[in-house]
Amino acid sequence: MRLTGLGEFGLIERIRRSVKNSARTVIGIGDDAAVVSLVAGQQLLLTTDMLVEGVHFTKDMTARLIGRKAMNCSVSDIAAMGGIPRFALISLAVPGNLETVFVDDLFRGLREAAAAFALDIVGGDTVRNDKIVINVALTGEGKAGQVVSRGGAKPGDQILVTGPLGGSLTSGGHLKFLPRVKEARYLVEHFLPTAMIDVSDGLASDLGHILAQSKVGAVIEESAIPLRKGAIIDNALYDGEDFELIFTLAQKPAAQLLKTKTLYHFYRIGEIQEAAKGYLIKKRYGRCLPVENKSYKHF
Amino acid sequence: MRLTGLGEFGLIERIRRSVKNSARTVIGIGDDAAVVSLVAGQQLLLTTDMLVEGVHFTKDMTARLIGRKAMNCSVSDIAAMGGIPRFALISLAVPGNLETVFVDDLFRGLREAAAAFALDIVGGDTVRNDKIVINVALTGEGKAGQVVSRGGAKPGDQILVTGPLGGSLTSGGHLKFLPRVKEARYLVEHFLPTAMIDVSDGLASDLGHILAQSKVGAVIEESAIPLRKGAIIDNALYDGEDFELIFTLAQKPAAQLLKTKTLYHFYRIGEIQEAAKGYLIKKRYGRCLPVENKSYKHF
Repeated sequence: MRLTGLGEFGLIERIRRSVKNSARTVIGIGDDAAVVSLVAGQQLLLTTDMLVEGVHFTKDMTARLIGRKAMNCSVSDIAAMGGIPRFALISLAVPGNLETVFVDDLFRGLREAAAAFALDIVGGDTVRNDKIVINVALTGEGKAGQVVSRGGAKPGDQILVTGPLGGSLTSGGHLKFLPRVKEARYLVEHFLPTAMIDVSDGLASDLGHILAQSKVGAVIEESAIPLRKGAIIDNALYDGEDFELIFTLAQKPAAQLLKTKTLYHFYRIGEIQEAAKGYLIKKRYGRCLPVENKSYKHF
Repeated sequence: MRLTGLGEFGLIERIRRSVKNSARTVIGIGDDAAVVSLVAGQQLLLTTDMLVEGVHFTKDMTARLIGRKAMNCSVSDIAAMGGIPRFALISLAVPGNLETVFVDDLFRGLREAAAAFALDIVGGDTVRNDKIVINVALTGEGKAGQVVSRGGAKPGDQILVTGPLGGSLTSGGHLKFLPRVKEARYLVEHFLPTAMIDVSDGLASDLGHILAQSKVGAVIEESAIPLRKGAIIDNALYDGEDFELIFTLAQKPAAQLLKTKTLYHFYRIGEIQEAAKGYLIKKRYGRCLPVENKSYKHF
Protein backbone atom coordinates (compact mmCIF):
# COMPACT_ATOMS: atom_id res chain seq x y z
CA MET A 1 0.00 0.00 0.00
CA ARG A 2 1.13 3.54 -0.80
CA LEU A 3 0.78 6.45 1.62
CA THR A 4 -1.59 8.21 -0.79
CA GLY A 5 -3.98 5.30 -0.25
CA LEU A 6 -3.67 5.37 3.52
CA GLY A 7 -4.16 9.14 3.80
CA GLU A 8 -2.79 11.45 6.49
CA PHE A 9 -5.27 10.54 9.22
CA GLY A 10 -4.91 6.84 8.36
CA LEU A 11 -1.18 7.19 8.80
CA ILE A 12 -1.51 9.03 12.12
CA GLU A 13 -4.00 6.45 13.43
CA ARG A 14 -1.65 3.64 12.37
CA ILE A 15 1.21 5.27 14.27
CA ARG A 16 -0.98 6.04 17.30
CA ARG A 17 -2.05 2.38 17.62
CA SER A 18 1.54 1.14 17.43
CA VAL A 19 2.79 3.27 20.33
CA LYS A 20 2.45 2.29 24.00
CA ASN A 21 3.25 4.90 26.66
CA SER A 22 3.94 5.16 30.37
CA ALA A 23 1.70 6.64 33.06
CA ARG A 24 3.74 9.87 32.79
CA THR A 25 1.98 10.55 29.49
CA VAL A 26 -1.43 12.05 30.28
CA ILE A 27 -2.47 12.67 26.63
CA GLY A 28 -0.32 11.19 23.84
CA ILE A 29 -0.60 11.16 20.04
CA GLY A 30 -3.85 12.53 18.59
CA ASP A 31 -4.58 15.87 20.22
CA ASP A 32 -3.23 19.38 19.48
CA ALA A 33 -0.37 18.86 21.90
CA ALA A 34 0.74 16.09 24.23
CA VAL A 35 0.27 16.48 27.99
CA VAL A 36 2.91 14.99 30.26
CA SER A 37 3.81 15.05 33.95
CA LEU A 38 7.22 15.15 35.57
CA VAL A 39 8.32 15.03 39.17
CA ALA A 40 7.97 18.49 40.74
CA GLY A 41 11.08 20.67 40.78
CA GLN A 42 13.00 18.75 38.10
CA GLN A 43 14.68 20.58 35.24
CA LEU A 44 13.64 19.93 31.68
CA LEU A 45 16.14 19.14 28.93
CA LEU A 46 14.96 19.96 25.39
CA THR A 47 16.66 18.87 22.17
CA THR A 48 15.80 18.40 18.51
CA ASP A 49 17.50 16.63 15.59
CA MET A 50 16.59 16.68 11.92
CA LEU A 51 17.66 13.85 9.58
CA VAL A 52 17.40 14.38 5.83
CA GLU A 53 17.42 11.72 3.09
CA GLY A 54 20.64 11.95 1.10
CA VAL A 55 22.52 13.67 3.95
CA HIS A 56 22.07 11.45 7.03
CA PHE A 57 20.63 8.36 5.34
CA THR A 58 19.54 6.96 1.98
CA LYS A 59 16.33 5.14 1.09
CA ASP A 60 18.26 1.90 0.44
CA MET A 61 19.23 1.68 4.12
CA THR A 62 16.93 -0.36 6.36
CA ALA A 63 14.01 1.86 7.42
CA ARG A 64 14.10 0.32 10.89
CA LEU A 65 17.73 1.38 11.35
CA ILE A 66 16.98 4.88 10.05
CA GLY A 67 14.22 5.16 12.67
CA ARG A 68 16.52 3.85 15.36
CA LYS A 69 19.21 6.36 14.40
CA ALA A 70 16.76 9.28 14.29
CA MET A 71 15.62 8.57 17.85
CA ASN A 72 19.07 7.77 19.18
CA CYS A 73 20.65 11.01 17.90
CA SER A 74 18.31 12.96 20.18
CA VAL A 75 18.67 10.47 23.04
CA SER A 76 22.44 10.95 22.80
CA ASP A 77 22.01 14.72 23.26
CA ILE A 78 20.03 14.16 26.47
CA ALA A 79 22.73 11.70 27.64
CA ALA A 80 25.38 14.36 26.95
CA MET A 81 23.64 16.62 29.51
CA GLY A 82 23.47 13.81 32.10
CA GLY A 83 19.69 13.57 31.73
CA ILE A 84 17.00 10.92 31.40
CA PRO A 85 15.13 10.88 28.04
CA ARG A 86 11.34 11.01 28.58
CA PHE A 87 9.06 12.31 25.78
CA ALA A 88 9.57 12.32 22.00
CA LEU A 89 7.73 14.17 19.20
CA ILE A 90 8.26 12.84 15.65
CA SER A 91 7.83 15.05 12.56
CA LEU A 92 7.89 13.13 9.31
CA ALA A 93 7.98 14.44 5.73
CA VAL A 94 7.38 11.68 3.18
CA PRO A 95 6.58 11.30 -0.54
CA GLY A 96 3.03 10.12 -1.25
CA ASN A 97 4.26 7.19 -3.35
CA LEU A 98 6.40 5.80 -0.52
CA GLU A 99 5.44 2.24 0.46
CA THR A 100 3.53 2.19 3.76
CA VAL A 101 5.79 -0.65 4.95
CA PHE A 102 8.73 1.79 4.89
CA VAL A 103 6.96 4.06 7.41
CA ASP A 104 5.93 1.03 9.49
CA ASP A 105 9.54 -0.13 9.66
CA LEU A 106 10.77 3.40 10.38
CA PHE A 107 8.39 3.65 13.34
CA ARG A 108 9.35 0.15 14.47
CA GLY A 109 12.94 1.43 14.73
CA LEU A 110 11.79 4.62 16.50
CA ARG A 111 9.71 2.56 18.96
CA GLU A 112 12.50 0.07 19.63
CA ALA A 113 14.95 2.86 20.38
CA ALA A 114 12.35 4.56 22.62
CA ALA A 115 11.62 1.30 24.45
CA ALA A 116 15.33 0.76 25.17
CA PHE A 117 15.18 3.88 27.36
CA ALA A 118 11.55 3.58 28.49
CA LEU A 119 10.73 6.92 26.84
CA ASP A 120 7.31 7.82 25.39
CA ILE A 121 6.48 8.88 21.83
CA VAL A 122 3.78 11.47 22.58
CA GLY A 123 3.02 13.21 19.30
CA GLY A 124 4.25 14.51 15.98
CA ASP A 125 3.41 15.88 12.58
CA THR A 126 3.23 14.38 9.10
CA VAL A 127 3.68 16.30 5.85
CA ARG A 128 4.23 15.54 2.20
CA ASN A 129 7.65 16.07 0.61
CA ASP A 130 9.62 14.55 -2.27
CA LYS A 131 12.44 13.58 0.11
CA ILE A 132 12.14 11.93 3.52
CA VAL A 133 12.83 14.26 6.47
CA ILE A 134 12.60 13.05 10.07
CA ASN A 135 12.72 15.41 13.05
CA VAL A 136 12.82 14.07 16.60
CA ALA A 137 12.25 16.61 19.38
CA LEU A 138 12.99 15.08 22.75
CA THR A 139 12.26 16.25 26.30
CA GLY A 140 14.41 14.84 29.07
CA GLU A 141 14.55 15.16 32.81
CA GLY A 142 17.55 16.49 34.67
CA LYS A 143 18.06 16.22 38.40
CA ALA A 144 18.98 19.53 40.02
CA GLY A 145 22.76 19.74 40.35
CA GLN A 146 23.33 16.83 37.95
CA VAL A 147 22.99 18.64 34.62
CA VAL A 148 26.30 18.90 32.72
CA SER A 149 26.86 21.62 30.10
CA ARG A 150 29.78 22.09 27.70
CA GLY A 151 31.03 25.09 29.61
CA GLY A 152 32.60 23.90 32.89
CA ALA A 153 36.00 22.39 31.97
CA LYS A 154 38.98 23.79 33.96
CA PRO A 155 42.76 23.62 33.32
CA GLY A 156 44.07 20.41 34.87
CA ASP A 157 40.82 18.49 34.27
CA GLN A 158 41.28 15.11 32.63
CA ILE A 159 39.56 14.40 29.28
CA LEU A 160 37.84 11.03 28.91
CA VAL A 161 35.67 9.18 26.36
CA THR A 162 33.21 6.33 26.77
CA GLY A 163 34.35 4.17 23.84
CA PRO A 164 36.36 3.73 20.64
CA LEU A 165 36.06 6.38 17.93
CA GLY A 166 36.34 6.56 14.12
CA GLY A 167 34.96 4.68 11.15
CA SER A 168 31.32 4.85 12.25
CA LEU A 169 30.16 5.34 8.65
CA THR A 170 32.11 2.44 7.08
CA SER A 171 31.30 0.08 10.00
CA GLY A 172 27.58 0.92 10.14
CA GLY A 173 28.14 2.15 13.70
CA HIS A 174 26.39 5.44 12.87
CA LEU A 175 23.14 3.47 12.46
CA LYS A 176 23.48 0.93 15.26
CA PHE A 177 25.06 2.85 18.14
CA LEU A 178 23.59 2.73 21.63
CA PRO A 179 23.39 6.21 23.20
CA ARG A 180 25.44 6.41 26.40
CA VAL A 181 22.55 7.21 28.74
CA LYS A 182 23.55 4.65 31.38
CA GLU A 183 27.19 5.76 31.36
CA ALA A 184 26.14 9.41 31.68
CA ARG A 185 23.75 8.66 34.54
CA TYR A 186 26.49 6.68 36.31
CA LEU A 187 28.89 9.58 35.86
CA VAL A 188 26.58 12.36 37.07
CA GLU A 189 25.53 10.34 40.10
CA HIS A 190 29.05 9.38 41.18
CA PHE A 191 31.66 11.66 39.60
CA LEU A 192 29.82 14.71 38.14
CA PRO A 193 31.81 15.70 35.01
CA THR A 194 32.74 19.38 34.66
CA ALA A 195 31.76 19.31 30.95
CA MET A 196 30.30 16.75 28.55
CA ILE A 197 29.34 16.41 24.84
CA ASP A 198 28.51 13.57 22.45
CA VAL A 199 30.65 12.90 19.37
CA SER A 200 28.55 13.82 16.34
CA ASP A 201 31.05 15.76 14.18
CA GLY A 202 34.28 14.06 15.33
CA LEU A 203 36.54 14.32 18.39
CA ALA A 204 38.44 17.37 17.01
CA SER A 205 35.31 19.44 16.49
CA ASP A 206 33.25 18.21 19.47
CA LEU A 207 36.02 18.55 22.06
CA GLY A 208 36.56 21.93 20.36
CA HIS A 209 33.02 22.92 21.43
CA ILE A 210 33.86 22.13 25.08
CA LEU A 211 37.06 24.19 24.80
CA ALA A 212 35.29 27.14 23.19
CA GLN A 213 32.45 27.19 25.72
CA SER A 214 34.74 26.56 28.70
CA LYS A 215 37.32 29.10 27.39
CA VAL A 216 40.20 26.63 27.83
CA GLY A 217 42.70 24.69 25.70
CA ALA A 218 43.62 20.99 25.70
CA VAL A 219 46.29 18.49 24.83
CA ILE A 220 45.07 15.08 23.68
CA GLU A 221 47.36 12.06 23.28
CA GLU A 222 47.23 10.17 20.00
CA SER A 223 48.34 6.92 21.65
CA ALA A 224 45.58 7.13 24.27
CA ILE A 225 42.63 7.66 21.92
CA PRO A 226 40.68 4.39 21.59
CA LEU A 227 40.01 3.50 17.94
CA ARG A 228 37.22 1.40 16.45
CA LYS A 229 38.55 -1.70 14.64
CA GLY A 230 40.02 -0.64 11.31
CA ALA A 231 40.02 3.07 12.13
CA ILE A 232 43.07 5.35 12.18
CA ILE A 233 43.57 8.51 14.24
CA ASP A 234 42.17 10.82 11.55
CA ASN A 235 38.93 8.81 11.55
CA ALA A 236 38.58 9.40 15.30
CA LEU A 237 39.30 13.10 14.90
CA TYR A 238 37.16 13.86 11.86
CA ASP A 239 34.62 11.14 10.93
CA GLY A 240 32.00 11.89 13.59
CA GLU A 241 28.71 10.08 14.32
CA ASP A 242 30.38 7.89 16.98
CA PHE A 243 27.91 9.11 19.63
CA GLU A 244 30.35 8.28 22.41
CA LEU A 245 30.58 10.87 25.18
CA ILE A 246 33.59 13.14 25.71
CA PHE A 247 33.73 14.49 29.25
CA THR A 248 36.09 16.25 31.62
CA LEU A 249 36.73 15.51 35.28
CA ALA A 250 39.03 17.08 37.90
CA GLN A 251 42.19 15.02 38.47
CA LYS A 252 41.16 13.26 41.71
CA PRO A 253 37.72 12.01 40.62
CA ALA A 254 39.23 11.07 37.23
CA ALA A 255 41.87 8.88 38.90
CA GLN A 256 39.16 7.39 41.13
CA LEU A 257 36.87 6.66 38.16
CA LEU A 258 39.66 4.95 36.22
CA LYS A 259 40.43 2.56 39.07
CA THR A 260 36.75 1.84 39.87
CA LYS A 261 35.32 -1.44 38.54
CA THR A 262 32.13 -0.63 36.60
CA LEU A 263 30.03 -2.15 33.84
CA TYR A 264 31.22 0.65 31.60
CA HIS A 265 34.41 1.64 29.80
CA PHE A 266 36.13 5.00 30.24
CA TYR A 267 39.32 6.02 28.47
CA ARG A 268 41.53 8.94 29.49
CA ILE A 269 42.67 10.72 26.32
CA GLY A 270 44.21 13.99 27.50
CA GLU A 271 44.10 17.03 29.74
CA ILE A 272 42.55 20.50 29.74
CA GLN A 273 45.03 23.39 29.79
CA GLU A 274 44.95 27.20 29.71
CA ALA A 275 43.36 28.61 26.55
CA ALA A 276 46.62 30.41 25.70
CA LYS A 277 48.41 27.05 25.41
CA GLY A 278 46.10 26.07 22.54
CA TYR A 279 44.39 22.91 21.35
CA LEU A 280 47.11 20.32 20.71
CA ILE A 281 47.56 16.65 19.89
CA LYS A 282 50.65 14.84 21.22
CA LYS A 283 51.65 12.52 18.37
CA ARG A 284 52.96 9.00 18.96
CA TYR A 285 56.52 10.14 18.29
CA GLY A 286 56.25 12.82 21.00
CA ARG A 287 55.74 16.09 19.11
CA CYS A 288 52.73 18.31 19.90
CA LEU A 289 50.82 19.69 16.91
CA PRO A 290 47.77 21.96 16.78
CA VAL A 291 44.52 20.02 16.24
CA GLU A 292 43.12 20.88 12.85
CA ASN A 293 39.43 21.64 13.19
CA LYS A 294 38.28 20.45 9.75
CA SER A 295 35.01 18.87 10.85
CA TYR A 296 32.21 17.78 8.55
CA LYS A 297 30.73 20.76 6.72
CA HIS A 298 26.93 20.80 6.91
CA PHE A 299 26.82 23.66 4.36
CA MET B 1 26.52 36.29 1.82
CA ARG B 2 25.59 32.67 1.14
CA LEU B 3 25.18 30.08 3.88
CA THR B 4 28.10 28.07 2.48
CA GLY B 5 30.31 31.05 3.34
CA LEU B 6 28.88 31.44 6.84
CA GLY B 7 29.21 27.74 7.71
CA GLU B 8 27.08 25.74 10.12
CA PHE B 9 28.66 27.02 13.32
CA GLY B 10 28.65 30.56 11.98
CA LEU B 11 24.94 30.23 11.32
CA ILE B 12 24.25 28.80 14.80
CA GLU B 13 26.28 31.56 16.47
CA ARG B 14 24.40 34.16 14.43
CA ILE B 15 21.09 32.73 15.59
CA ARG B 16 22.27 32.38 19.21
CA ARG B 17 23.26 36.04 19.39
CA SER B 18 19.93 37.20 18.01
CA VAL B 19 17.84 35.39 20.64
CA LYS B 20 17.10 36.81 24.11
CA ASN B 21 15.51 34.53 26.70
CA SER B 22 13.75 34.70 30.05
CA ALA B 23 15.07 33.58 33.44
CA ARG B 24 13.15 30.32 32.97
CA THR B 25 15.79 29.27 30.43
CA VAL B 26 18.80 27.94 32.36
CA ILE B 27 20.83 26.91 29.28
CA GLY B 28 19.64 28.00 25.82
CA ILE B 29 21.03 27.59 22.32
CA GLY B 30 24.52 26.11 22.05
CA ASP B 31 24.68 22.99 24.21
CA ASP B 32 23.54 19.41 23.51
CA ALA B 33 20.10 20.17 24.92
CA ALA B 34 18.41 23.17 26.47
CA VAL B 35 17.75 23.24 30.22
CA VAL B 36 14.59 24.95 31.42
CA SER B 37 12.64 25.31 34.66
CA LEU B 38 8.92 25.35 35.20
CA VAL B 39 6.80 25.86 38.26
CA ALA B 40 6.63 22.62 40.25
CA GLY B 41 3.60 20.41 39.63
CA GLN B 42 2.56 21.97 36.33
CA GLN B 43 1.78 19.78 33.34
CA LEU B 44 3.83 20.03 30.18
CA LEU B 45 2.26 20.44 26.75
CA LEU B 46 4.40 19.23 23.85
CA THR B 47 3.75 19.89 20.17
CA THR B 48 5.67 19.94 16.89
CA ASP B 49 4.94 21.32 13.40
CA MET B 50 6.89 20.85 10.20
CA LEU B 51 6.60 23.36 7.33
CA VAL B 52 7.94 22.40 3.92
CA GLU B 53 8.77 24.72 0.99
CA GLY B 54 6.27 24.19 -1.82
CA VAL B 55 3.61 22.80 0.54
CA HIS B 56 3.17 25.36 3.33
CA PHE B 57 5.09 28.27 1.79
CA THR B 58 7.14 29.27 -1.25
CA LYS B 59 10.50 31.04 -1.38
CA ASP B 60 8.88 34.13 -2.94
CA MET B 61 6.91 34.75 0.26
CA THR B 62 8.47 37.09 2.83
CA ALA B 63 10.91 35.07 4.95
CA ARG B 64 9.83 37.01 8.02
CA LEU B 65 6.21 35.96 7.53
CA ILE B 66 7.24 32.33 6.92
CA GLY B 67 9.12 32.41 10.25
CA ARG B 68 6.15 33.98 11.97
CA LYS B 69 3.81 31.33 10.56
CA ALA B 70 6.14 28.46 11.53
CA MET B 71 6.20 29.61 15.16
CA ASN B 72 2.51 30.51 15.30
CA CYS B 73 1.33 27.10 14.00
CA SER B 74 2.87 25.48 17.10
CA VAL B 75 1.72 28.28 19.40
CA SER B 76 -1.82 27.71 18.11
CA ASP B 77 -1.60 24.03 19.12
CA ILE B 78 -0.65 25.00 22.68
CA ALA B 79 -3.53 27.53 22.70
CA ALA B 80 -5.90 24.77 21.59
CA MET B 81 -5.04 22.86 24.80
CA GLY B 82 -5.59 25.95 26.98
CA GLY B 83 -1.86 26.22 27.72
CA ILE B 84 0.85 28.86 27.88
CA PRO B 85 3.63 28.55 25.23
CA ARG B 86 7.09 28.55 26.87
CA PHE B 87 10.09 26.97 25.04
CA ALA B 88 10.70 26.49 21.30
CA LEU B 89 13.26 24.38 19.41
CA ILE B 90 13.82 25.26 15.74
CA SER B 91 15.10 22.70 13.19
CA LEU B 92 16.02 24.22 9.86
CA ALA B 93 16.96 22.50 6.60
CA VAL B 94 18.33 24.95 4.02
CA PRO B 95 20.20 24.92 0.69
CA GLY B 96 23.83 26.07 0.91
CA ASN B 97 23.30 28.70 -1.79
CA LEU B 98 20.46 30.38 0.12
CA GLU B 99 21.14 34.04 0.92
CA THR B 100 21.99 34.52 4.59
CA VAL B 101 19.54 37.42 4.73
CA PHE B 102 16.71 34.96 4.10
CA VAL B 103 17.62 33.02 7.27
CA ASP B 104 18.04 36.28 9.19
CA ASP B 105 14.56 37.40 8.16
CA LEU B 106 13.12 33.95 8.89
CA PHE B 107 14.51 34.12 12.43
CA ARG B 108 13.32 37.70 12.79
CA GLY B 109 9.81 36.38 12.14
CA LEU B 110 10.33 33.45 14.52
CA ARG B 111 11.62 35.83 17.24
CA GLU B 112 8.80 38.33 16.76
CA ALA B 113 6.19 35.59 17.09
CA ALA B 114 8.00 34.22 20.17
CA ALA B 115 8.20 37.70 21.73
CA ALA B 116 4.46 38.25 21.26
CA PHE B 117 3.89 35.41 23.74
CA ALA B 118 7.05 35.90 25.85
CA LEU B 119 8.26 32.42 24.91
CA ASP B 120 11.94 31.40 24.66
CA ILE B 121 13.76 29.94 21.64
CA VAL B 122 16.08 27.53 23.47
CA GLY B 123 17.75 25.42 20.79
CA GLY B 124 17.52 23.71 17.43
CA ASP B 125 19.30 21.96 14.61
CA THR B 126 20.52 23.04 11.18
CA VAL B 127 21.01 20.75 8.19
CA ARG B 128 21.57 21.07 4.48
CA ASN B 129 18.77 20.29 2.02
CA ASP B 130 17.76 21.43 -1.46
CA LYS B 131 14.37 22.62 -0.14
CA ILE B 132 13.68 24.65 2.99
CA VAL B 133 12.11 22.69 5.86
CA ILE B 134 11.30 24.31 9.21
CA ASN B 135 10.28 22.31 12.26
CA VAL B 136 9.16 24.07 15.44
CA ALA B 137 8.85 21.88 18.55
CA LEU B 138 7.16 23.78 21.34
CA THR B 139 6.79 23.07 25.06
CA GLY B 140 3.96 24.74 26.89
CA GLU B 141 2.71 24.87 30.43
CA GLY B 142 -0.72 23.71 31.47
CA LYS B 143 -2.31 24.41 34.81
CA ALA B 144 -3.71 21.31 36.48
CA GLY B 145 -7.44 21.04 35.70
CA GLN B 146 -7.23 23.65 32.91
CA VAL B 147 -5.95 21.47 30.06
CA VAL B 148 -8.57 20.92 27.33
CA SER B 149 -8.39 17.89 25.00
CA ARG B 150 -10.49 17.08 21.92
CA GLY B 151 -12.28 14.28 23.73
CA GLY B 152 -14.74 15.84 26.22
CA ALA B 153 -17.69 17.17 24.17
CA LYS B 154 -21.15 15.98 25.35
CA PRO B 155 -24.57 15.98 23.60
CA GLY B 156 -26.25 19.33 24.32
CA ASP B 157 -22.92 21.22 24.47
CA GLN B 158 -22.81 24.38 22.37
CA ILE B 159 -20.19 24.71 19.61
CA LEU B 160 -18.37 28.05 19.38
CA VAL B 161 -15.53 29.62 17.38
CA THR B 162 -13.23 32.55 18.17
CA GLY B 163 -13.41 34.31 14.79
CA PRO B 164 -14.40 34.32 11.11
CA LEU B 165 -13.37 31.38 8.94
CA GLY B 166 -12.50 30.75 5.27
CA GLY B 167 -10.27 32.30 2.64
CA SER B 168 -7.12 32.33 4.77
CA LEU B 169 -4.97 31.46 1.75
CA THR B 170 -6.33 34.09 -0.63
CA SER B 171 -6.38 36.80 2.08
CA GLY B 172 -2.86 36.05 3.41
CA GLY B 173 -4.46 35.25 6.78
CA HIS B 174 -2.60 31.92 6.89
CA LEU B 175 0.67 33.89 7.23
CA LYS B 176 -0.46 36.73 9.47
CA PHE B 177 -2.84 35.14 11.96
CA LEU B 178 -2.45 35.72 15.70
CA PRO B 179 -2.77 32.45 17.67
CA ARG B 180 -5.68 32.57 20.11
CA VAL B 181 -3.62 32.12 23.28
CA LYS B 182 -5.32 34.96 25.19
CA GLU B 183 -8.80 33.78 24.21
CA ALA B 184 -7.96 30.21 25.27
CA ARG B 185 -6.52 31.34 28.61
CA TYR B 186 -9.62 33.46 29.23
CA LEU B 187 -11.83 30.47 28.43
CA VAL B 188 -10.02 27.89 30.59
CA GLU B 189 -9.89 30.29 33.54
CA HIS B 190 -13.55 31.30 33.42
CA PHE B 191 -15.61 28.80 31.41
CA LEU B 192 -13.47 25.63 30.93
CA PRO B 193 -14.46 24.25 27.51
CA THR B 194 -15.31 20.53 27.33
CA ALA B 195 -13.27 20.18 24.09
CA MET B 196 -11.14 22.47 21.94
CA ILE B 197 -9.12 22.39 18.67
CA ASP B 198 -7.58 24.94 16.30
CA VAL B 199 -8.70 25.20 12.68
CA SER B 200 -5.82 23.97 10.53
CA ASP B 201 -7.61 21.73 7.98
CA GLY B 202 -11.01 23.50 7.93
CA LEU B 203 -14.08 23.56 10.18
CA ALA B 204 -15.53 20.34 8.67
CA SER B 205 -12.42 18.27 9.36
CA ASP B 206 -11.31 19.88 12.64
CA LEU B 207 -14.74 19.81 14.31
CA GLY B 208 -14.80 16.24 12.94
CA HIS B 209 -11.75 15.46 15.13
CA ILE B 210 -13.62 16.66 18.24
CA LEU B 211 -16.63 14.52 17.27
CA ALA B 212 -14.51 11.42 16.64
CA GLN B 213 -12.55 11.72 19.86
CA SER B 214 -15.61 12.67 21.94
CA LYS B 215 -17.72 9.94 20.22
CA VAL B 216 -20.54 12.39 19.51
CA GLY B 217 -22.30 14.01 16.54
CA ALA B 218 -23.11 17.67 15.82
CA VAL B 219 -25.37 20.00 13.92
CA ILE B 220 -23.82 23.26 12.78
CA GLU B 221 -25.82 26.17 11.38
CA GLU B 222 -24.70 27.66 8.07
CA SER B 223 -26.20 31.05 8.91
CA ALA B 224 -24.34 31.21 12.25
CA ILE B 225 -20.84 30.45 10.94
CA PRO B 226 -18.82 33.71 10.80
CA LEU B 227 -17.10 34.17 7.44
CA ARG B 228 -13.95 36.12 6.61
CA LYS B 229 -14.65 38.96 4.13
CA GLY B 230 -15.07 37.49 0.67
CA ALA B 231 -15.37 33.90 1.88
CA ILE B 232 -18.35 31.59 1.29
CA ILE B 233 -19.49 28.69 3.48
CA ASP B 234 -17.37 26.09 1.61
CA ASN B 235 -14.24 28.17 2.34
CA ALA B 236 -15.03 28.03 6.06
CA LEU B 237 -15.67 24.29 5.92
CA TYR B 238 -12.74 23.22 3.75
CA ASP B 239 -10.00 25.87 3.31
CA GLY B 240 -8.26 25.47 6.67
CA GLU B 241 -5.32 27.43 8.13
CA ASP B 242 -7.66 29.89 9.88
CA PHE B 243 -6.10 29.05 13.28
CA GLU B 244 -9.25 30.15 15.09
CA LEU B 245 -10.33 27.90 17.98
CA ILE B 246 -13.40 25.66 17.84
CA PHE B 247 -14.61 24.74 21.33
CA THR B 248 -17.57 23.21 23.08
CA LEU B 249 -19.26 24.37 26.29
CA ALA B 250 -22.25 23.08 28.27
CA GLN B 251 -25.41 25.12 27.62
CA LYS B 252 -25.35 27.27 30.80
CA PRO B 253 -21.73 28.45 30.62
CA ALA B 254 -22.15 28.96 26.85
CA ALA B 255 -25.12 31.27 27.41
CA GLN B 256 -23.18 33.05 30.14
CA LEU B 257 -20.11 33.49 27.91
CA LEU B 258 -22.18 34.91 25.05
CA LYS B 259 -23.72 37.59 27.25
CA THR B 260 -20.41 38.50 29.00
CA LYS B 261 -18.62 41.61 27.79
CA THR B 262 -15.00 40.65 26.97
CA LEU B 263 -12.17 41.88 24.77
CA TYR B 264 -12.67 38.79 22.64
CA HIS B 265 -15.20 37.54 20.12
CA PHE B 266 -17.01 34.23 20.43
CA TYR B 267 -19.58 32.94 17.92
CA ARG B 268 -22.04 30.11 18.60
CA ILE B 269 -22.21 27.94 15.47
CA GLY B 270 -24.08 24.80 16.52
CA GLU B 271 -24.70 22.06 19.03
CA ILE B 272 -23.27 18.65 19.91
CA GLN B 273 -25.70 15.73 19.55
CA GLU B 274 -25.66 11.95 19.96
CA ALA B 275 -23.23 10.20 17.59
CA ALA B 276 -26.12 8.23 16.03
CA LYS B 277 -27.71 11.51 14.84
CA GLY B 278 -24.65 12.19 12.70
CA TYR B 279 -22.62 15.23 11.70
CA LEU B 280 -24.97 17.68 9.99
CA ILE B 281 -25.11 21.20 8.64
CA LYS B 282 -28.43 23.10 8.77
CA LYS B 283 -28.48 25.04 5.49
CA ARG B 284 -29.86 28.60 5.25
CA TYR B 285 -33.11 27.34 3.70
CA GLY B 286 -33.67 24.98 6.67
CA ARG B 287 -32.68 21.51 5.41
CA CYS B 288 -30.08 19.47 7.30
CA LEU B 289 -27.38 17.77 5.20
CA PRO B 290 -24.47 15.56 6.26
CA VAL B 291 -21.17 17.48 6.47
CA GLU B 292 -18.87 16.27 3.75
CA ASN B 293 -15.45 15.63 5.27
CA LYS B 294 -13.31 16.41 2.21
CA SER B 295 -10.49 18.19 4.03
CA TYR B 296 -7.13 19.05 2.55
CA LYS B 297 -5.24 15.91 1.61
CA HIS B 298 -1.67 15.98 2.87
CA PHE B 299 -0.85 12.87 0.81
